[in-house]
Amino acid sequence: MSKRIAGPEIERLIQLLAKVPGLGPRSARRAALHLIKKKEQLLQPLAAAMGEAVEKVRVCSTCGNVDTTDPCMICTDPRRDAATLIVVEDVADLWALERAGAMNVRYHVLGGTLSPLDGIGPDQLNIRSLVDRLAGGEVKEVILAVNATVEGQTTAHYITDQLSGLDVRVTRLAHGVPVGGELDYLDEGTLATALKSRTLF
Amino acid sequence: MSKRIAGPEIERLIQLLAKVPGLGPRSARRAALHLIKKKEQLLQPLAAAMGEAVEKVRVCSTCGNVDTTDPCMICTDPRRDAATLIVVEDVADLWALERAGAMNVRYHVLGGTLSPLDGIGPDQLNIRSLVDRLAGGEVKEVILAVNATVEGQTTAHYITDQLSGLDVRVTRLAHGVPVGGELDYLDEGTLATALKSRTLF
Repeated sequence: MSKRIAGPEIERLIQLLAKVPGLGPRSARRAALHLIKKKEQLLQPLAAAMGEAVEKVRVCSTCGNVDTTDPCMICTDPRRDAATLIVVEDVADLWALERAGAMNVRYHVLGGTLSPLDGIGPDQLNIRSLVDRLAGGEVKEVILAVNATVEGQTTAHYITDQLSGLDVRVTRLAHGVPVGGELDYLDEGTLATALKSRTLF
Repeated sequence: MSKRIAGPEIERLIQLLAKVPGLGPRSARRAALHLIKKKEQLLQPLAAAMGEAVEKVRVCSTCGNVDTTDPCMICTDPRRDAATLIVVEDVADLWALERAGAMNVRYHVLGGTLSPLDGIGPDQLNIRSLVDRLAGGEVKEVILAVNATVEGQTTAHYITDQLSGLDVRVTRLAHGVPVGGELDYLDEGTLATALKSRTLF
């Protein structure tokens, strides 16, 4: 609002909501109004949930995941296979892999990718803690589930180098056609890789 | 998340965020993760702003606007012309008109439109309070700034009937081509109205 038309509390709420990813200045106003109208049903519980998250959420000192306990729920889950570790860039990738639900294993969150131009070197990522974790000898396979970007692949190569002395199998995700994807919309690199890595029908 | 991968506090935060207009289940997860990562800069201030809104926001007993004071900032602003009242369906419309900044007047928020099928009759809207407000005699013009929908126009007609005995000029927003709008994309009804209501160049 260019002109002051409501108390500063409402304007501040709109300003902060506009910083939430997925909301812009316009949708932040809509969201604020909706929240105000649903004060008891939504605004109040959301404020409480956020306050509780502020209080309780912490970063897992073992794997870098976020949770309300440290070590996190995944690191302490005894039913997970401790012999395999999936290395991801970000907690969002961990969540995505958990939703896929294909493997019941543990993770290691790097917290980003190597990016010398942005001042992000190995020491800014959780790479040393990964090497320390593997020194225990329990993990037999490390799956590098980093993004298929230049930065992701550079980081994967660096990690592979760091792990070369250890008795650990280092693997990466398969490249190919996404399930449900249409060939017509895929880039040439993906199609070329999918052809090269073709499997028996 | 189908599988429990984090404490219930994080899952509850995601569930509630998914109810905010503009965010769906997927973007709620992204938003939650972003908020958790920016705990000090964003999550904590937002939780506080929401808590404050819960505490302080109320509906203006004069006009139906939402604000942290009652009567609201607009109703108590002495620099606004008290002779003109703009009737809107919703607070969002009031905000939109204030952003346009064309008139420095007061408002009356109906809280919806007549909709017998949904059980919304005149008593469910702030129509009686509008008539009461006009009985004071200070207001000389009522601008019906309701949406150009069937429900909006029906409501406008009903209000015009209710005000027929009073010494008040009832007007409505002009129909026509939106500023910056391309004729090619406009519906026939708007174009026909814009032609019929043409003005001298």
